[in-house]
Formats: sequence, C-alpha cells, structure tokens
Amino acid sequence: MVSSGRGAAGTQQPVARRRGPVLERAILAAALDQLTEVGWKGFTMEGVATAAQTGKASVYRRWPSKEELVLDALRAGLPGPAEPPDHGSLRADLLSFCHSLLDSMRSRTGVALRAVIHECDHRAAERFTEFIEGEVLAPGKRLIREIMKNGIARGEVRPDAESGMVEDVVPALLMYRTKLCGGQVTDRDAVEIVDRVMLPLLRVHSA
Amino acid sequence: MVSSGRGAAGTQQPVARRRGPVLERAILAAALDQLTEVGWKGFTMEGVATAAQTGKASVYRRWPSKEELVLDALRAGLPGPAEPPDHGSLRADLLSFCHSLLDSMRSRTGVALRAVIHECDHRAAERFTEFIEGEVLAPGKRLIREIMKNGIARGEVRPDAESGMVEDVVPALLMYRTKLCGGQVTDRDAVEIVDRVMLPLLRVHSA
Repeated sequence: MVSSGRGAAGTQQPVARRRGPVLERAILAAALDQLTEVGWKGFTMEGVATAAQTGKASVYRRWPSKEELVLDALRAGLPGPAEPPDHGSLRADLLSFCHSLLDSMRSRTGVALRAVIHECDHRAAERFTEFIEGEVLAPGKRLIREIMKNGIARGEVRPDAESGMVEDVVPALLMYRTKLCGGQVTDRDAVEIVDRVMLPLLRVHSA
Repeated sequence: MVSSGRGAAGTQQPVARRRGPVLERAILAAALDQLTEVGWKGFTMEGVATAAQTGKASVYRRWPSKEELVLDALRAGLPGPAEPPDHGSLRADLLSFCHSLLDSMRSRTGVALRAVIHECDHRAAERFTEFIEGEVLAPGKRLIREIMKNGIARGEVRPDAESGMVEDVVPALLMYRTKLCGGQVTDRDAVEIVDRVMLPLLRVHSA
C-alpha cells in the first residue's frame, strides 16, 4: 500500500517511489494546492516539491519555470469542454450558465486561477493572457453564444443582440461581485443577473 | 535649514524642514507613488519615508500601520464628489459616465486602488471593503442612479429598470476588460458598452 503524508508536517509517512504520470499528477495537484493556499507570489518550486513529497530536481526536470508549472497545473484542473445548456427556455439556459460559471469560480482551479490573475505581475501576466483567453474565457463565450443562438431560433432573443461585450456581461458581473462587494456571490445574485440584466437586454419586443 | 536626502539615491538634495500638513501631504503622495510602483505587497513604511525624504518615525507617528496610511493616501487621491452628467440624452449621459469611470481607473489613485484590491490578502482586504464600498463604489452608483432617474423622467428609460445589479454593469465590464482581456480598455469599448449593452438594457419599448 502506498500512503502519502504532508512533507512539511512532522508526521512524515513513507511514500513509495512514483514515476512518470503518477508523479506528474502528484506534482500538478500539489501545485494547484500551493496556488490556492499561498497565491502566486508565495508559490515556490520548493514548496511544490515538498508538498508532493519529491525532490526539487524532479519538478525542475519537467517544468523549467514556475510559470510553466502553474500553466500545466491550471490546465490539468480545468473541466473538459461543457455542452451548452438546452432546457428549452432562455431563462433556464441563462441560469444554468450562471451556475456553471459560479461553480467554476468556486472550484479549486477557479480559486487558483484568480490567485494568478490578481496577483501576478505584468510581466508574468502576459504569459498567462493567451492561456486565459483561449482556454478559460473562450469556452464560456462559446456557451453564451450557443444559448443566444438557440434563443434567437426560438424567437426569444433579438437577432441583433449578439456582441462581444454582451457575451462578457455575466462573467464580468460575477467577477465584479466576487472581488469587490465583500465576497461571495449567491445564487440569488445569479437570479438577479438573469432577470434584471440578461433577459431585458436580450429579449425581443413586440413592435 | 535642516536637510534630509533620499536614503538610497546618490544625488541627495536638500529639503527644507516640513511640518504639519505639508509633511503629511508629502507622505501621502509618496505612499500613493509606492502603491502604483511596487503594489500592496511591496509597500513598506520605510519605502514611503525614504521617498518622502523623512524619517520612519514621522510616518509611524501619524499612521501606526500600513493599512491606515494606504487608506488615507487613497482617500486623499480620490476626486471630490462628481456632478451627475446631464446632457439631455441617455446615450450622452452614459458615455460621459463611462469616460469618467475610465479616467478614474487610469488615474494614479485608480492604479493604486487596483493594486490594493487585487493584491492584498483577505485579512487586509476586509479592512478595505468598507472604504471601497462607501467611498469608491457608492459615488459611482449614485451617478448611474441619477442618470437613470433623468432618463425615466425624459421617457427614455423603463421605470422598472432600476436594480443594484444594473448599476454594476458598467463598472463590472470596465474592470473585467481591464483585468482579463489583455489590458487597456479603449474609448471604442465604452461606446460598445453603451450602445450594445446599456441602451438595449434600459430603453423603453413601445408596446
């Protein structure tokens, strides 16, 4: 049996020698933990090695820099591509979209990602921009576009409603409320976003 | 004449002895500079004292902690209460609101404030929440409410459009675009926010 203990704690338990993918997964999981616990600035390769109960050399052999390790850890923690919700009504689809974004933001990967977005300096931030735009934001934009397309087909959404800025409204409000308004976003906020902002913004009006 | 020089720099220039409000303003200005240059985490009372060409004791005498100094520096850098724009049309008022928010975000105080919002840890963040909500966000909310009220009076805005979430749409989109979409928000983005999001969201529809 293999048991793993926390490296830094006093009660170290023996760890069987891990190789290849098993060790890699342990390092990536430890990297995600580090990010959520100490943020980008507190993140060190040493800390990850200790938490993964391996040597620094094992980490550096696979990831020559903190940036590369963090990118791979975030990538490994992202959910796979989501199917757009299709509940037969715009309101239900939008609520489902809000809740899935909220779930992502509350997930371990979401917390780690925010640590990177908010804390890393501009030089490092540039290295993450491509990842964030392509692998984090783009999937969400695809979902909201699909929801709007289905809403247009059902006659619920104005055909001229589509715009890059409109696609950003839900994630922008969720991020703003999470960051600025003293903390957690509730499911009631999601309902308010849908009923007070998205539905009036998108809906078709009888002339 | 007493002179104190820049601690670290080689080219020290004499500085007249400053007291009271003059010295306080110099310390607050230096604190704002420090925040924009090195962020919340790099900010030290020593760094501020050096930049203000005074002693650490002079800083600590007035501000016993980093948090208190930063709060006063931000407060001193905020613009006074703004008059709500009143150009006679909803579109013009909203564009004016967007541009004034953008100007604030690009100002020295705005950059310093973002450093605090994004970088400070949760313990410190709590101490800033009241300040941010009361002195930074509330004035913006008052402006957008006034704009909507005038729009309702002119028959341009749905009387049932008002909601806390609607008030957050413009600042949320500006912050989201600034933080996540690879940098600067342009004046064209402001036009897109107004024309594609706020006007469709607020406008009255003939039944």
